Amino acid sequence: MKDKVTPKILPGFMELLPEDQICFNRMYQTIRSVYERFGYLPQDTPVIEYSDVLLAKAGGETEKQIYRFQKGDNDLALRFDLTVPLARYVAQHYNDLVFPFKRYQMNKVFRGERPQKGRFREFYQCDIDVIGVESLELVFDAEMPAVIYQVFKELDFGSFTIRINNRKVLNGFFSELGFADRIADILRTIDKLEKIGEQSVAKELAEFGVSSEAAKRILDFIAYKGTNDEMLAMLDAQNVADETYREGVRELTQVIGYLRRFGVEEAAFLIDLTIARGLDYYTGTVYETMLNDYPSMGSVCSGGRYDNLTEYYTDQKLPGIGISIGLSRLFYQLKENGLLTGAPKSLTKCLVIPMNESLMDTALEAAALLRAEGINTDVYYQNKGMKQKMKYANRLAIPYVVIIGEDEKAAGTATVKDMESGEQRTIALDKLSEYVK
Amino acid sequence: MKDKVTPKILPGFMELLPEDQICFNRMYQTIRSVYERFGYLPQDTPVIEYSDVLLAKAGGETEKQIYRFQKGDNDLALRFDLTVPLARYVAQHYNDLVFPFKRYQMNKVFRGERPQKGRFREFYQCDIDVIGVESLELVFDAEMPAVIYQVFKELDFGSFTIRINNRKVLNGFFSELGFADRIADILRTIDKLEKIGEQSVAKELAEFGVSSEAAKRILDFIAYKGTNDEMLAMLDAQNVADETYREGVRELTQVIGYLRRFGVEEAAFLIDLTIARGLDYYTGTVYETMLNDYPSMGSVCSGGRYDNLTEYYTDQKLPGIGISIGLSRLFYQLKENGLLTGAPKSLTKCLVIPMNESLMDTALEAAALLRAEGINTDVYYQNKGMKQKMKYANRLAIPYVVIIGEDEKAAGTATVKDMESGEQRTIALDKLSEYVK
Repeated sequence: MKDKVTPKILPGFMELLPEDQICFNRMYQTIRSVYERFGYLPQDTPVIEYSDVLLAKAGGETEKQIYRFQKGDNDLALRFDLTVPLARYVAQHYNDLVFPFKRYQMNKVFRGERPQKGRFREFYQCDIDVIGVESLELVFDAEMPAVIYQVFKELDFGSFTIRINNRKVLNGFFSELGFADRIADILRTIDKLEKIGEQSVAKELAEFGVSSEAAKRILDFIAYKGTNDEMLAMLDAQNVADETYREGVRELTQVIGYLRRFGVEEAAFLIDLTIARGLDYYTGTVYETMLNDYPSMGSVCSGGRYDNLTEYYTDQKLPGIGISIGLSRLFYQLKENGLLTGAPKSLTKCLVIPMNESLMDTALEAAALLRAEGINTDVYYQNKGMKQKMKYANRLAIPYVVIIGEDEKAAGTATVKDMESGEQRTIALDKLSEYVK
Repeated sequence: MKDKVTPKILPGFMELLPEDQICFNRMYQTIRSVYERFGYLPQDTPVIEYSDVLLAKAGGETEKQIYRFQKGDNDLALRFDLTVPLARYVAQHYNDLVFPFKRYQMNKVFRGERPQKGRFREFYQCDIDVIGVESLELVFDAEMPAVIYQVFKELDFGSFTIRINNRKVLNGFFSELGFADRIADILRTIDKLEKIGEQSVAKELAEFGVSSEAAKRILDFIAYKGTNDEMLAMLDAQNVADETYREGVRELTQVIGYLRRFGVEEAAFLIDLTIARGLDYYTGTVYETMLNDYPSMGSVCSGGRYDNLTEYYTDQKLPGIGISIGLSRLFYQLKENGLLTGAPKSLTKCLVIPMNESLMDTALEAAALLRAEGINTDVYYQNKGMKQKMKYANRLAIPYVVIIGEDEKAAGTATVKDMESGEQRTIALDKLSEYVK
């Protein structure tokens, strides 16, 4: 006999007990159901791909974090996001897809970063993207927050705000001030505003040759707050001639208009000029989503528009727009904040308990009746005392216990106990499913 | 600009176009829903684990196939099945689990074997297992085929047979013939019966010192065919005193009795003594499942009882029983055999089409009404001709097109086209969802 191996998993990997897994899966299912309700198609790409394909674009930090290894002659890597596989998929299957191509993928991705509280090396991302050929209608820029709105409404973790901005507004504004050649640096800096504060941002901007006067204009501009209509009026009234800026304002105005037609509550979305999304990837509308009572969680759903998804694979110009929910992280944060306690803890509705072994046949038949009506039903088979049997139901949070005794068998009934109220009733077997429904 | 990278995936990896993915997901969802209907709890273990944990038992072939690599100081591996992670999970979380522990896991596993037609390196397994402490009731041996029955009934790919055997019957029979020390060899040999035929099996048995007379007795014994009751009567009538044999017959008799109480049709299960399941892992009831019209597919769902799940991790004795469906392989085979053509090809029920851009607002409102009723709805935003718009619906197999024109807008209606029948009707917007439901 070999020595025993200690059963453990790697740090930074999430593994849940059944009760939490049920809750996690319910969130997963809610998100998927909304994605499908808006017409997104399912996608499931391989976990393992060729390194040169996955890393066609990457560099720097991403490359360091990746799980990469050799198998036979092949240099392989595990996907580190769902956007690169999407780009590869669209380029590879271009002739077989219908455009605009709307897809969701909700799968694990892998990043070997140093594990920290709430950061995982293996985690679920839940993404939707729409990819167009050559161009993509602006109304999709409103569809994204409409989907976010529906998802967080159905997840039901309190009020939230979808913050919306448009990179063209920022880019145009910075160009107008004479910083067209430093836009990426400025964006990356103001993206840190919430973290490091105005003073540090101004200091960092100075390093890029932004005068303190210009820094003040930038900071005043992005700090502007108001209702969506006030924000649009303010943007329009700015003495900025830059054509990119003007286009950004027009886009933002139209997106807000569409959003209202999608039936999204006004309180749920807000133009916020501080949303820069550091990545140089984005080119138009950008989003972040905050739970209003838990600002420390940061953005729970982000995304935006990009001009060219597949540039590393084809010459075809394929613009797109997408959003992503980091579900593992979101789940962890919600649990830490005690927000998951209200959800039902069982998928199973009934536990059938035969009083003794000779009643097993009747118990199996009762369970079959319930299952035939689509009711998730477990049966307690162990020859243990009633206390043990009830404890099983209790620990698994099963809401109804269906007891089959000799009397019940003779009468064709069962005693049904509602585990929450404690109420017991005798019900005919053929009425059981109706009762527990 | 870097050179373009060719977008491609590794050989032996499955990636589906949306239409097939919808079909795959529907099968996945059917299996999961049955697993949950029988009270199984969801489980989702990490893809990456410590190599020494995953390989605690393995050796030989498994070890060669595994994706194993170094990251930092850690020797890591990708899971190659869902049973080893289950064993690790149960040993690790023993104190937090409720026993008998019933769980399902339906996830990808990874095996770097030489890719062949219909064999994948990354594929879905859909497993259920029940784990007991010290012992596990025999009625679970009937629950497994009851679950298999329900799964394949709902998957609806024609008639199927769950073949049932009990290793104790075979082991006891071989012991009675004096081969107690060669049971594993004999089992592995007769497991090849369908592949290599009686003569080759007899020849191979001779290599293990089984006389031609004994080989004939073995082959005659396992070849016996009859109804389940005839098989049980035959087994009982055998002049075999071996206690393991007798226990096996008693178990088989009881399992068949329970199965009938589960409401499983008699035609769907059959005692078949040729089912040996080569693995030395199994110790009692074993199963294989065949699609009656497609015997060449081999077993589409197999499993059985084992004595000690966690022996490499703890001293605790934890017997269990489980089954597994290799979903990726099953999907591939069904598709190859043209059995997937009947399934609906769209998750989206309606496509809303505004006749021109000025009707977009009304289209968005119509879509919101449909979605509010839980109807998966897409909207065509592109400013293209009607033919292009209808082509989009056609290619995505969306069953209803909801057309919003100027007249419809004025009247608060829409023209709904049933894409299969071609029928068109004008419907009030607030009656739309009712109509397409």
